[in-house]
Amino acid sequence: MLIDINVDKARESLLDLVVPLGEETIYLEEALGRILGSDLRAPADLPPVAQAAVDGYALGGEGSGARGDYALQDGSRRQATFGPVLGPGQAAAVVTGGPLPTGTVEVVAREHARIEGNRLLTAALVTPGRNVKPAGEDFRAGEVVVPAGTRVDPGLTAVLAAFGQDGVPVRRCPRVGVLSLGREIVPHRYAPSAGQVRDANGPLLAALATRDGARVIAVETAGGDGLPEARVKLRRLWEHVEMVLTVGGVASGPDDYALSLLRESGARVLFWGVGIKPGHHSGAAVWEDRPVIALSGNPAACAVGYQLLAAPVLRAFQGITPFPAPVSAVCNDSFPKQGGPRRFLRGYAACGPEGWRVSLLPGQKSSMLRSLINWNALVDLPAGHQPVEPGSRVSFLPL
Amino acid sequence: MLIDINVDKARESLLDLVVPLGEETIYLEEALGRILGSDLRAPADLPPVAQAAVDGYALGGEGSGARGDYALQDGSRRQATFGPVLGPGQAAAVVTGGPLPTGTVEVVAREHARIEGNRLLTAALVTPGRNVKPAGEDFRAGEVVVPAGTRVDPGLTAVLAAFGQDGVPVRRCPRVGVLSLGREIVPHRYAPSAGQVRDANGPLLAALATRDGARVIAVETAGGDGLPEARVKLRRLWEHVEMVLTVGGVASGPDDYALSLLRESGARVLFWGVGIKPGHHSGAAVWEDRPVIALSGNPAACAVGYQLLAAPVLRAFQGITPFPAPVSAVCNDSFPKQGGPRRFLRGYAACGPEGWRVSLLPGQKSSMLRSLINWNALVDLPAGHQPVEPGSRVSFLPL
Repeated sequence: MLIDINVDKARESLLDLVVPLGEETIYLEEALGRILGSDLRAPADLPPVAQAAVDGYALGGEGSGARGDYALQDGSRRQATFGPVLGPGQAAAVVTGGPLPTGTVEVVAREHARIEGNRLLTAALVTPGRNVKPAGEDFRAGEVVVPAGTRVDPGLTAVLAAFGQDGVPVRRCPRVGVLSLGREIVPHRYAPSAGQVRDANGPLLAALATRDGARVIAVETAGGDGLPEARVKLRRLWEHVEMVLTVGGVASGPDDYALSLLRESGARVLFWGVGIKPGHHSGAAVWEDRPVIALSGNPAACAVGYQLLAAPVLRAFQGITPFPAPVSAVCNDSFPKQGGPRRFLRGYAACGPEGWRVSLLPGQKSSMLRSLINWNALVDLPAGHQPVEPGSRVSFLPL
Repeated sequence: MLIDINVDKARESLLDLVVPLGEETIYLEEALGRILGSDLRAPADLPPVAQAAVDGYALGGEGSGARGDYALQDGSRRQATFGPVLGPGQAAAVVTGGPLPTGTVEVVAREHARIEGNRLLTAALVTPGRNVKPAGEDFRAGEVVVPAGTRVDPGLTAVLAAFGQDGVPVRRCPRVGVLSLGREIVPHRYAPSAGQVRDANGPLLAALATRDGARVIAVETAGGDGLPEARVKLRRLWEHVEMVLTVGGVASGPDDYALSLLRESGARVLFWGVGIKPGHHSGAAVWEDRPVIALSGNPAACAVGYQLLAAPVLRAFQGITPFPAPVSAVCNDSFPKQGGPRRFLRGYAACGPEGWRVSLLPGQKSSMLRSLINWNALVDLPAGHQPVEPGSRVSFLPL
């Protein structure tokens, strides 16, 4: 067990445990926001056959008669489906996006043609390929449309539909269980008695993990009975998830039983304590290859520990880049403290005319929830940092 | 009916129809990403009572005996729940985030105290309020925590849990039905016969609307039978939704029956045709106060029409700002076309050291799907615009 280690090293020791999860095939309707498990290759040309780019008439090339005089096939202007084979001097009605009859040389727009009985008259010269969307114009059979690890967005949904891909192979979502430790903790929907505190960290972690693509299967509290109850609940969670998050009980006091809970449950402790503030009291262990990350019960420390240690594990399970690249920004606000360990502040980043700017959210004490509202940037101050002045440059991790 | 109107005017005519939807109360666990229907006021101080900011001992103030010598109450270091009333010279063990006994003057950290039998000895001077988190430090009873229209994020989830708010009043999600028109269109999961085309626009619109907070109740196609089938399906959708999106059949050809479909179904047509490219063939009507927006069957035109006309309606139903403020950016790419109506290109925007930069996505033809992948910015070129050169400044709408 390593004690009070560097947070980057702590994260690496967790990521070393992770094997990306396998794929599952889900309906296209459920795929929005999910991660593709492998490269998406175009199974066929798209469009599969040449299509009309305008409403009008497919022309089979100049015939032997007068220029611009075509025999309209099928005797009907309303022919909208796959038409006849067109020969020279023949024409057929087509609609935008509809397939073109074999033999089509060009398409003339409806407003540039006139119908007289079964004849189509047009003044326009024949320009082969005009208003024709060739097969494969959008995607060529076999090309990689997007690589593995791409998140399904609305545009990709449309592409998958166009390819007829009803089932979409995506990475399985990592399952997560959350266990809030502490004799005074009650589930948030209970009315706390004197001396009890509602569990806000459990719902916090569940929401954070959900946003990061996890499927949260349970948010438990292990309250009054302490260690024995916690041991039972932890074991039950472990059997059904890829990762457990515990919260609270991580300091060194007599009620801080997270460490003994993990040890007595047969987990191998990886590290205990990381050199950051807030979140110093964070630890991690592994049980049957499943990581458990023990986070501080102070809400901001819990959230910071989650972002630095747990979120990367969830991303790695999904086969995507585990940790965002740091971003440089100008800080709008001051922060008077200095020195001490590497410090992480909760901020809100926005792009201005001179690049990223970050505001420090109010309520930066680790015991406060306020700074977690509208939080989208984790400002990273190095160990021994100076006070932050408005206009100084800081580094942040986008969330 | 207005013909070929300005797109901003078209959008206003739709927004004039919208009354924000009412609230529904859902479980906290389901609230992530939903929109608060009214201001969130703190129902009580948070924390409700003073809490310890560190693990250690609550001190009841200097007693009559030696300085730094306290009688430990409850005879147990493991006292973790609501303790006794402390008088001067008395102390009790407390845990971080746990409530403090009445009479607490300060808290001394565990590492700065020593226990001898029932006595607690500390060298530290009494500093009233030290390591005490006063009641209401995070939120004061009655304060507006966040205003109506705020999206529930993980931090707000934690705040709601801390307040014990098990049921969260959020705006109801607008229900949307999608109807793809066109005799050649088959649902994407069907194998198309010769002359048929898979419906990609329906899944596209469903995904876009879902991302914008809608609940998509059905994606239908009205294919082979044309108008009569479409009329039945449209009516059925209308009865269960706040908004219908139709796609295809909007031009002026013989198979473009969207306009007659709406008229014969008893809808009042608001406008038909807007001065934009792509998406010129977009229209809208209203039936029993329910808007229906008719979008072009060309995928990029469909998506652009959706963003400019339908997405604002969905946001207005949720009581949030319907239309994003335009953003100025430097364009990374060239676009050779010029002149003509107001043009909208699909782009990807990112913040660089000199502010926003936008890349034009490949495949800008309105018949192509490719530019919809990874699309996050709608570049807005004014009517009669010049060609875009790399490095020129453009305006975009963030999506």
